[in-house]
Amino acid sequence: MSEPAPSLPAGFQFSGVACGIKASGKKDVSLIVSERDVVGAGVFTKNQIVAAPVLLCKARTPSETIRAVVTNSGNANACTGQSGMDDAVTMCQQVAAKVGCDESQVLVMSTGVIGQPLPMDKIAVGIEQAHDQLSNDHESFLSAADAILTTDNARKMVQRTVVCGGKSYEIAAMAKGAGMISPNMATMLAVVLTDAPLESTQCQTMLAKAADLSFNRVSVDGHTSTNDTLLLLSSGQGEPLSGEPLQDFVDQLNDLCIELAKKLVADGEGATHVMQVHVHGAADDSAAELIARTVAASPLVKTAITGGDPNWGRIVSAAGYAEAKIDPTKTTLKICGQAIYLEGVPQSFDAAALSKKMKANVDVEIDLQVGLQSGKATFWSSDLTTEYVTFNSEYTT
Amino acid sequence: MSEPAPSLPAGFQFSGVACGIKASGKKDVSLIVSERDVVGAGVFTKNQIVAAPVLLCKARTPSETIRAVVTNSGNANACTGQSGMDDAVTMCQQVAAKVGCDESQVLVMSTGVIGQPLPMDKIAVGIEQAHDQLSNDHESFLSAADAILTTDNARKMVQRTVVCGGKSYEIAAMAKGAGMISPNMATMLAVVLTDAPLESTQCQTMLAKAADLSFNRVSVDGHTSTNDTLLLLSSGQGEPLSGEPLQDFVDQLNDLCIELAKKLVADGEGATHVMQVHVHGAADDSAAELIARTVAASPLVKTAITGGDPNWGRIVSAAGYAEAKIDPTKTTLKICGQAIYLEGVPQSFDAAALSKKMKANVDVEIDLQVGLQSGKATFWSSDLTTEYVTFNSEYTT
Repeated sequence: MSEPAPSLPAGFQFSGVACGIKASGKKDVSLIVSERDVVGAGVFTKNQIVAAPVLLCKARTPSETIRAVVTNSGNANACTGQSGMDDAVTMCQQVAAKVGCDESQVLVMSTGVIGQPLPMDKIAVGIEQAHDQLSNDHESFLSAADAILTTDNARKMVQRTVVCGGKSYEIAAMAKGAGMISPNMATMLAVVLTDAPLESTQCQTMLAKAADLSFNRVSVDGHTSTNDTLLLLSSGQGEPLSGEPLQDFVDQLNDLCIELAKKLVADGEGATHVMQVHVHGAADDSAAELIARTVAASPLVKTAITGGDPNWGRIVSAAGYAEAKIDPTKTTLKICGQAIYLEGVPQSFDAAALSKKMKANVDVEIDLQVGLQSGKATFWSSDLTTEYVTFNSEYTT
Repeated sequence: MSEPAPSLPAGFQFSGVACGIKASGKKDVSLIVSERDVVGAGVFTKNQIVAAPVLLCKARTPSETIRAVVTNSGNANACTGQSGMDDAVTMCQQVAAKVGCDESQVLVMSTGVIGQPLPMDKIAVGIEQAHDQLSNDHESFLSAADAILTTDNARKMVQRTVVCGGKSYEIAAMAKGAGMISPNMATMLAVVLTDAPLESTQCQTMLAKAADLSFNRVSVDGHTSTNDTLLLLSSGQGEPLSGEPLQDFVDQLNDLCIELAKKLVADGEGATHVMQVHVHGAADDSAAELIARTVAASPLVKTAITGGDPNWGRIVSAAGYAEAKIDPTKTTLKICGQAIYLEGVPQSFDAAALSKKMKANVDVEIDLQVGLQSGKATFWSSDLTTEYVTFNSEYTT
């Protein structure tokens, strides 16, 4: 696999090691350290059942003084009570002792099995090793990205050089998640790093917006996990971006987060297709988002996509039960650019040719005009395969 | 198959015939006729894309003057525009001409493929034959119940003798639906007949409530169809029930509708288990219903049930993302009576023994206490199997 390799954002060091949390022996402790205080922001799961590391990160962001992010995979440290919280704090303390900062300057993420105590002896060794191996080279960044994976088939990262107000900055991001969300094995985590100078509350606002446009618009199975965490760290020094340069950065961040989020869907458990549901003509953007989400979540739409079946009845009826208004007499549907249903009337089309097209492409575009106002949104979802069902119905206890 | 055979409600005749809408040659036109005007009420799909027969039935209920219900299976007459509406009216006219009533006294239901014109020549012959074969015997009732089925594996009916205020009445009901809801092939239809004397607006109110407790609390795939219809017809004469006898009837009706609705789930496409999700301790009953529905709809919970996996993390995290409040520190979970998670703390239990129990029983009880007030609700859902995915991802166009 050839990875793109622009420069990494200045000021960060990386490592990923295997300490034995995963029975497979794969990397399971990831460390990101900055040489000085950096700006940090976070967006977290909306689940009411929240893992200990999420509670800790929530309390510590936004911040102007972050020094490190430590992540373990293979164990979610969720539903683990007070001892789980103690363990999360201990992980931060161990990193802080190595880095030479206060433990409150360390962020922590965990992903994996729910309800099991963390193997703290192994993690202590892992943190020690990870600190010893810190480096700012590309190989170390890849190690850190690998060490946060669980059921993922592929490493998920995006790197870009962005130009804002005539100056160029680097952004590098890593993510994990093969169900957007499958709480037993795989939850969604992502870290975005940049050397663009940003202020922390600004960071928090733009990250929340970016999440709404990206990670909150992808679904594998609609199951919101206990651990979902998205972090943005900025090591940039000097005057924070503002005005047009800031807007340039925001646009690039949104785009990068969408690219990263789509990687989660493409690697969704058992997924063979990614459907992109574009909704236009809704009452407003949030109504459009709700309609797109409802279509993308329907098991009948998902299985039709799996089978390469241009089964428009399933799609328009899913739009019809979304809890946002549509005008059935003005509803128009295209699949992969082919008009199928025009202002409430079925059109004749070459179903075999369209099916062939749907099967041949990983991406299946669903374009739905619902005939009201100008609200629009896009939502990305994996299809539903027998492999998903088999994978998730295997006896795991 | 041995069917229970108490008396049928007085005043109704039945038939079911095959007229060739279904390629299989199975029965596809069902007729119920009353010898005089009867009270009728209806509850319908909340989808914004609504089939022609639903629009017609909505306009005609509640009523004190219903004479017949005609149903075809194999074609949903949905997304068929004005010609579809004309066809639905024509079916009513054809029945009315035979029965000797106004066409507005006839209710019509359709179920099957979306977006195809009805084969009206075949249906005309079917209605003629069905009228010729009308009878009040049990065999004819079974024929009528068979003729509304589509992808169902089993006939769905319930018959009961109910005692209200010292008098006994008969109730007989039939239903179809193998996805609660799968708009291409199978939508949910049900007719409940009784000879208990009821008034029409009273009928409408009690039917809506019964639907909320039964058909609105079952799900195979969460996809609300364009055709869902539940009808209640009462041929009872004399003073309508009131006071305690009426309450007795309502209780029995609710119970019967729950029994009928559970048959839909048990016969859900590919289903191997029925999960019964009981939620207690929510802010109110509707919050409890939302939590139960969210747990029952999670593909990860469904696949865990398929695999006989007491995967409690999936269940409590699904409760956690329901859009109704829970108290995570007081949340308690039992599966098949086994306490697994007690006030936010995982309990040790014999996972292998519980798994064996879950696999051995069709019904899997999930009992969730969410630690707030006294709101409670039960929701029934099928599990999710590879057979569901295979069945629904076959190329159908």
